[in-house]
Amino acid sequence: MQTLFRYNWKVREEWYQWCEDVSSEELLKPRTGGVGSILKTLFHIADVEWSWIRSIQGKPDFQENFEKYNTLQKVRELDAAFRPEVEQFVLDWNVDLERRIFEDTLADGSTVTDAWGEVMRHVIAHEIHHVGQLSVWAREVGKPPISANVIGKGLMNTLPEGL
Amino acid sequence: MQTLFRYNWKVREEWYQWCEDVSSEELLKPRTGGVGSILKTLFHIADVEWSWIRSIQGKPDFQENFEKYNTLQKVRELDAAFRPEVEQFVLDWNVDLERRIFEDTLADGSTVTDAWGEVMRHVIAHEIHHVGQLSVWAREVGKPPISANVIGKGLMNTLPEGL
Repeated sequence: MQTLFRYNWKVREEWYQWCEDVSSEELLKPRTGGVGSILKTLFHIADVEWSWIRSIQGKPDFQENFEKYNTLQKVRELDAAFRPEVEQFVLDWNVDLERRIFEDTLADGSTVTDAWGEVMRHVIAHEIHHVGQLSVWAREVGKPPISANVIGKGLMNTLPEGL
Repeated sequence: MQTLFRYNWKVREEWYQWCEDVSSEELLKPRTGGVGSILKTLFHIADVEWSWIRSIQGKPDFQENFEKYNTLQKVRELDAAFRPEVEQFVLDWNVDLERRIFEDTLADGSTVTDAWGEVMRHVIAHEIHHVGQLSVWAREVGKPPISANVIGKGLMNTLPEGL
Protein backbone atom coordinates (compact mmCIF):
# COMPACT_ATOMS: atom_id res chain seq x y z
CA MET A 1 0.00 0.00 0.00
CA GLN A 2 2.59 2.56 1.09
CA THR A 3 4.87 1.64 -1.83
CA LEU A 4 2.34 2.77 -4.43
CA PHE A 5 1.59 6.00 -2.55
CA ARG A 6 5.33 6.73 -2.46
CA TYR A 7 5.49 5.90 -6.15
CA ASN A 8 2.68 8.35 -6.91
CA TRP A 9 4.24 11.15 -4.86
CA LYS A 10 7.60 10.65 -6.58
CA VAL A 11 6.06 10.58 -10.06
CA ARG A 12 3.89 13.61 -9.23
CA GLU A 13 6.94 15.60 -8.14
CA GLU A 14 8.66 14.66 -11.40
CA TRP A 15 5.60 15.90 -13.32
CA TYR A 16 5.72 19.21 -11.44
CA GLN A 17 9.35 19.53 -12.51
CA TRP A 18 8.37 18.57 -16.06
CA CYS A 19 5.89 21.47 -16.03
CA GLU A 20 8.54 24.02 -15.02
CA ASP A 21 9.72 24.73 -18.54
CA VAL A 22 6.35 24.31 -20.25
CA SER A 23 4.35 27.49 -20.89
CA SER A 24 1.25 28.15 -18.80
CA GLU A 25 -0.66 28.31 -22.07
CA GLU A 26 0.27 24.66 -22.78
CA LEU A 27 -0.40 23.65 -19.17
CA LEU A 28 -3.90 25.17 -19.26
CA LYS A 29 -4.77 24.27 -22.85
CA PRO A 30 -8.02 22.27 -23.13
CA ARG A 31 -7.27 18.67 -24.14
CA THR A 32 -9.27 15.63 -25.14
CA GLY A 33 -10.28 13.32 -22.29
CA GLY A 34 -9.81 13.35 -18.54
CA VAL A 35 -10.42 16.62 -16.71
CA GLY A 36 -9.22 18.61 -19.70
CA SER A 37 -5.78 20.17 -19.08
CA ILE A 38 -2.37 19.19 -17.73
CA LEU A 39 -2.44 21.54 -14.74
CA LYS A 40 -6.06 20.82 -13.86
CA THR A 41 -5.16 17.12 -13.82
CA LEU A 42 -2.38 17.68 -11.29
CA PHE A 43 -4.74 19.82 -9.19
CA HIS A 44 -7.43 17.13 -9.44
CA ILE A 45 -5.00 14.39 -8.34
CA ALA A 46 -3.94 16.28 -5.19
CA ASP A 47 -7.54 17.30 -4.46
CA VAL A 48 -8.96 13.79 -4.81
CA GLU A 49 -6.21 12.16 -2.72
CA TRP A 50 -6.73 14.53 0.19
CA SER A 51 -10.54 14.60 -0.14
CA TRP A 52 -10.89 10.81 0.05
CA ILE A 53 -8.61 10.52 3.05
CA ARG A 54 -10.59 13.26 4.79
CA SER A 55 -13.96 11.82 3.78
CA ILE A 56 -13.46 8.29 5.05
CA GLN A 57 -12.48 9.76 8.42
CA GLY A 58 -15.68 11.82 8.46
CA LYS A 59 -13.78 15.10 8.10
CA PRO A 60 -14.87 17.91 5.74
CA ASP A 61 -13.23 17.53 2.36
CA PHE A 62 -11.88 20.01 -0.18
CA GLN A 63 -14.46 21.81 -2.29
CA GLU A 64 -12.37 24.55 -3.92
CA ASN A 65 -12.46 25.36 -7.58
CA PHE A 66 -9.49 24.97 -9.96
CA GLU A 67 -9.86 28.62 -11.01
CA LYS A 68 -8.30 29.61 -7.67
CA TYR A 69 -5.30 27.31 -8.27
CA ASN A 70 -4.55 27.71 -11.95
CA THR A 71 -0.77 28.16 -11.78
CA LEU A 72 1.92 25.54 -11.24
CA GLN A 73 3.06 27.27 -8.07
CA LYS A 74 -0.43 27.38 -6.57
CA VAL A 75 -1.03 23.70 -7.30
CA ARG A 76 2.31 22.75 -5.74
CA GLU A 77 1.54 24.85 -2.66
CA LEU A 78 -1.87 23.27 -2.28
CA ASP A 79 -0.38 19.80 -2.65
CA ALA A 80 2.33 20.62 -0.10
CA ALA A 81 -0.33 21.87 2.33
CA PHE A 82 -2.29 18.62 1.99
CA ARG A 83 0.69 16.26 2.05
CA PRO A 84 1.54 15.98 5.77
CA GLU A 85 -1.97 14.82 6.66
CA VAL A 86 -2.12 12.38 3.75
CA GLU A 87 1.36 11.04 4.45
CA GLN A 88 0.62 10.48 8.13
CA PHE A 89 -2.57 8.61 7.29
CA VAL A 90 -0.76 6.39 4.78
CA LEU A 91 2.15 5.69 7.15
CA ASP A 92 -0.28 4.80 9.96
CA TRP A 93 -2.19 2.41 7.69
CA ASN A 94 -2.53 -1.15 8.95
CA VAL A 95 -4.41 -4.27 7.94
CA ASP A 96 -7.12 -3.73 10.55
CA LEU A 97 -8.35 -0.72 8.57
CA GLU A 98 -8.80 -2.67 5.32
CA ARG A 99 -12.44 -3.59 5.85
CA ARG A 100 -13.60 -0.64 7.89
CA ILE A 101 -16.77 0.64 6.21
CA PHE A 102 -17.17 4.08 4.69
CA GLU A 103 -20.76 5.08 3.99
CA ASP A 104 -20.87 7.51 1.11
CA THR A 105 -23.89 9.68 0.33
CA LEU A 106 -24.26 10.22 -3.41
CA ALA A 107 -25.60 13.30 -5.17
CA ASP A 108 -29.08 11.75 -5.42
CA GLY A 109 -29.21 11.19 -1.65
CA SER A 110 -28.71 7.42 -1.84
CA THR A 111 -25.88 5.77 0.09
CA VAL A 112 -23.26 3.22 -0.90
CA THR A 113 -20.61 1.55 1.21
CA ASP A 114 -16.94 1.08 0.41
CA ALA A 115 -14.25 -0.68 2.41
CA TRP A 116 -11.46 1.71 3.45
CA GLY A 117 -9.03 -0.61 1.65
CA GLU A 118 -11.01 -0.13 -1.57
CA VAL A 119 -10.92 3.64 -1.15
CA MET A 120 -7.14 3.64 -0.64
CA ARG A 121 -6.61 1.55 -3.78
CA HIS A 122 -9.07 3.80 -5.61
CA VAL A 123 -6.89 6.80 -4.71
CA ILE A 124 -3.75 4.99 -5.93
CA ALA A 125 -5.31 3.91 -9.24
CA HIS A 126 -6.96 7.31 -9.73
CA GLU A 127 -3.59 9.04 -9.89
CA ILE A 128 -1.90 6.45 -12.10
CA HIS A 129 -4.85 6.59 -14.52
CA HIS A 130 -4.74 10.37 -14.82
CA VAL A 131 -0.95 10.32 -15.20
CA GLY A 132 -1.45 7.97 -18.14
CA GLN A 133 -3.51 10.76 -19.71
CA LEU A 134 -0.72 13.25 -19.00
CA SER A 135 1.69 10.97 -20.86
CA VAL A 136 -0.38 11.30 -24.05
CA TRP A 137 -0.72 15.07 -23.71
CA ALA A 138 3.04 15.36 -23.05
CA ARG A 139 3.66 13.92 -26.52
CA GLU A 140 1.22 16.50 -27.92
CA VAL A 141 3.36 19.18 -26.25
CA GLY A 142 6.41 17.55 -27.85
CA LYS A 143 8.17 16.75 -24.56
CA PRO A 144 8.82 13.15 -23.41
CA PRO A 145 6.59 12.11 -20.50
CA ILE A 146 7.86 11.14 -17.05
CA SER A 147 8.61 7.42 -16.73
CA ALA A 148 5.79 5.41 -15.18
CA ASN A 149 8.15 2.66 -13.99
CA VAL A 150 7.73 1.42 -10.43
CA ILE A 151 10.95 -0.58 -10.62
CA GLY A 152 14.29 1.17 -10.38
CA LYS A 153 13.11 3.86 -7.97
CA GLY A 154 14.32 2.16 -4.77
CA LEU A 155 10.77 2.33 -3.44
CA MET A 156 11.04 -0.77 -1.28
CA ASN A 157 14.46 -0.02 0.20
CA THR A 158 13.08 2.72 2.41
CA LEU A 159 10.26 0.77 3.97
CA PRO A 160 10.98 -1.63 6.82
CA GLU A 161 7.90 -3.68 6.10
CA GLY A 162 8.01 -3.29 2.32
CA LEU A 163 4.24 -3.03 1.91
CA MET B 1 -2.07 -6.84 -4.01
CA GLN B 2 -4.70 -9.24 -5.33
CA THR B 3 -7.37 -6.52 -5.25
CA LEU B 4 -5.56 -4.37 -7.82
CA PHE B 5 -4.87 -7.35 -10.08
CA ARG B 6 -8.58 -8.22 -9.96
CA TYR B 7 -9.37 -4.59 -10.68
CA ASN B 8 -7.10 -4.64 -13.73
CA TRP B 9 -8.57 -7.88 -15.07
CA LYS B 10 -12.11 -6.55 -14.67
CA VAL B 11 -11.31 -3.23 -16.33
CA ARG B 12 -9.41 -5.01 -19.12
CA GLU B 13 -12.41 -7.24 -19.84
CA GLU B 14 -14.62 -4.15 -20.00
CA TRP B 15 -12.18 -2.58 -22.49
CA TYR B 16 -12.34 -5.73 -24.65
CA GLN B 17 -16.14 -5.38 -24.64
CA TRP B 18 -15.76 -1.66 -25.42
CA CYS B 19 -13.72 -2.64 -28.49
CA GLU B 20 -16.41 -4.98 -29.83
CA ASP B 21 -18.36 -2.30 -31.67
CA VAL B 22 -15.37 -0.17 -32.66
CA SER B 23 -13.97 -0.75 -36.16
CA SER B 24 -10.63 -2.50 -36.52
CA GLU B 25 -9.45 0.59 -38.36
CA GLU B 26 -10.02 2.70 -35.22
CA LEU B 27 -8.52 0.00 -32.98
CA LEU B 28 -5.34 -0.13 -35.07
CA LYS B 29 -5.09 3.57 -35.92
CA PRO B 30 -1.74 5.09 -34.89
CA ARG B 31 -2.22 7.48 -31.94
CA THR B 32 -0.08 9.96 -30.05
CA GLY B 33 1.75 8.54 -27.01
CA GLY B 34 2.03 5.13 -25.43
CA VAL B 35 2.61 2.15 -27.72
CA GLY B 36 0.58 3.79 -30.47
CA SER B 37 -2.83 2.12 -30.92
CA ILE B 38 -5.74 0.91 -28.81
CA LEU B 39 -5.37 -2.76 -29.69
CA LYS B 40 -1.59 -2.79 -29.43
CA THR B 41 -1.98 -1.31 -25.93
CA LEU B 42 -4.24 -4.17 -24.85
CA PHE B 43 -1.80 -6.68 -26.37
CA HIS B 44 1.10 -4.94 -24.60
CA ILE B 45 -0.69 -5.04 -21.23
CA ALA B 46 -1.33 -8.79 -21.43
CA ASP B 47 2.18 -9.43 -22.76
CA VAL B 48 3.94 -7.41 -20.05
CA GLU B 49 1.90 -8.91 -17.21
CA TRP B 50 2.69 -12.46 -18.23
CA SER B 51 6.31 -11.72 -19.19
CA TRP B 52 7.17 -10.19 -15.81
CA ILE B 53 5.59 -13.02 -13.88
CA ARG B 54 7.51 -15.51 -16.00
CA SER B 55 10.77 -13.56 -15.80
CA ILE B 56 10.98 -13.22 -12.03
CA GLN B 57 10.53 -16.98 -11.78
CA GLY B 58 13.38 -17.50 -14.23
CA LYS B 59 11.05 -18.87 -16.93
CA PRO B 60 11.28 -17.84 -20.60
CA ASP B 61 9.04 -14.87 -21.33
CA PHE B 62 6.91 -13.87 -24.30
CA GLN B 63 8.77 -12.46 -27.29
CA GLU B 64 6.06 -12.44 -29.96
CA ASN B 65 5.30 -9.53 -32.20
CA PHE B 66 2.01 -7.62 -32.22
CA GLU B 67 1.68 -8.23 -35.98
CA LYS B 68 0.71 -11.83 -35.18
CA TYR B 69 -2.03 -10.69 -32.77
CA ASN B 70 -3.56 -7.68 -34.49
CA THR B 71 -7.25 -8.50 -34.06
CA LEU B 72 -9.42 -8.18 -30.97
CA GLN B 73 -10.11 -11.90 -30.98
CA LYS B 74 -6.43 -12.85 -31.17
CA VAL B 75 -5.52 -10.52 -28.31
CA ARG B 76 -8.34 -11.92 -26.17
CA GLU B 77 -7.24 -15.49 -26.93
CA LEU B 78 -3.64 -14.70 -26.06
CA ASP B 79 -4.72 -13.04 -22.81
CA ALA B 80 -6.95 -16.03 -21.96
CA ALA B 81 -4.04 -18.39 -22.61
CA PHE B 82 -1.76 -16.42 -20.24
CA ARG B 83 -4.35 -15.82 -17.53
CA PRO B 84 -4.41 -19.12 -15.58
CA GLU B 85 -0.67 -18.97 -14.89
CA VAL B 86 -0.81 -15.29 -13.94
CA GLU B 87 -3.87 -15.76 -11.76
CA GLN B 88 -2.35 -18.70 -9.91
CA PHE B 89 0.82 -16.74 -9.22
CA VAL B 90 -1.16 -13.76 -7.91
CA LEU B 91 -3.42 -15.93 -5.74
CA ASP B 92 -0.40 -17.73 -4.29
CA TRP B 93 1.31 -14.43 -3.47
CA ASN B 94 2.36 -13.95 0.16
CA VAL B 95 4.36 -11.45 2.14
CA ASP B 96 7.45 -13.67 2.19
CA LEU B 97 7.87 -13.07 -1.55
CA GLU B 98 7.90 -9.26 -1.25
CA ARG B 99 11.65 -8.87 -0.92
CA ARG B 100 12.82 -11.81 -2.95
CA ILE B 101 15.40 -10.49 -5.41
CA PHE B 102 15.06 -10.58 -9.18
CA GLU B 103 18.27 -9.94 -11.08
CA ASP B 104 17.49 -8.42 -14.43
CA THR B 105 19.98 -8.28 -17.30
CA LEU B 106 19.51 -5.14 -19.38
CA ALA B 107 20.07 -4.75 -23.11
CA ASP B 108 23.59 -3.38 -22.53
CA GLY B 109 24.55 -6.48 -20.53
CA SER B 110 24.51 -4.74 -17.14
CA THR B 111 22.36 -6.10 -14.33
CA VAL B 112 19.93 -4.46 -11.92
CA THR B 113 18.00 -5.94 -9.03
CA ASP B 114 14.34 -5.49 -8.20
CA ALA B 115 12.35 -6.85 -5.28
CA TRP B 116 9.55 -9.17 -6.43
CA GLY B 117 7.13 -6.87 -4.61
CA GLU B 118 8.33 -3.96 -6.74
CA VAL B 119 7.86 -5.99 -9.91
CA MET B 120 4.29 -6.93 -8.95
CA ARG B 121 3.41 -3.28 -8.28
CA HIS B 122 5.15 -2.33 -11.50
CA VAL B 123 2.84 -4.71 -13.38
CA ILE B 124 -0.23 -3.24 -11.64
CA ALA B 125 0.77 0.39 -12.33
CA HIS B 126 1.83 -0.45 -15.88
CA GLU B 127 -1.69 -1.48 -16.83
CA ILE B 128 -3.45 1.40 -15.08
CA HIS B 129 -1.08 3.87 -16.77
CA HIS B 130 -1.74 2.47 -20.24
CA VAL B 131 -5.49 2.35 -19.60
CA GLY B 132 -5.30 6.06 -18.80
CA GLN B 133 -3.95 6.50 -22.33
CA LEU B 134 -6.85 4.43 -23.71
CA SER B 135 -9.27 6.77 -21.94
CA VAL B 136 -7.95 9.74 -23.96
CA TRP B 137 -8.03 7.82 -27.24
CA ALA B 138 -11.59 6.64 -26.48
CA ARG B 139 -12.70 10.27 -26.50
CA GLU B 140 -10.95 10.71 -29.84
CA VAL B 141 -13.02 7.78 -31.14
CA GLY B 142 -16.10 9.54 -29.70
CA LYS B 143 -17.05 6.73 -27.31
CA PRO B 144 -16.99 7.20 -23.51
CA PRO B 145 -14.11 5.33 -21.83
CA ILE B 146 -14.52 2.52 -19.31
CA SER B 147 -14.71 3.76 -15.72
CA ALA B 148 -11.40 3.62 -13.86
CA ASN B 149 -13.11 3.46 -10.46
CA VAL B 150 -11.83 0.88 -7.99
CA ILE B 151 -14.76 1.53 -5.64
CA GLY B 152 -18.18 0.14 -6.45
CA LYS B 153 -16.90 -3.05 -8.10
CA GLY B 154 -17.22 -5.30 -5.03
CA LEU B 155 -13.52 -6.11 -5.34
CA MET B 156 -12.98 -6.72 -1.65
CA ASN B 157 -16.11 -8.78 -1.06
CA THR B 158 -14.68 -11.74 -2.89
CA LEU B 159 -11.39 -11.94 -1.04
CA PRO B 160 -11.28 -13.47 2.42
CA GLU B 161 -8.12 -11.61 3.32
CA GLY B 162 -9.01 -8.44 1.46
CA LEU B 163 -5.48 -7.73 0.34
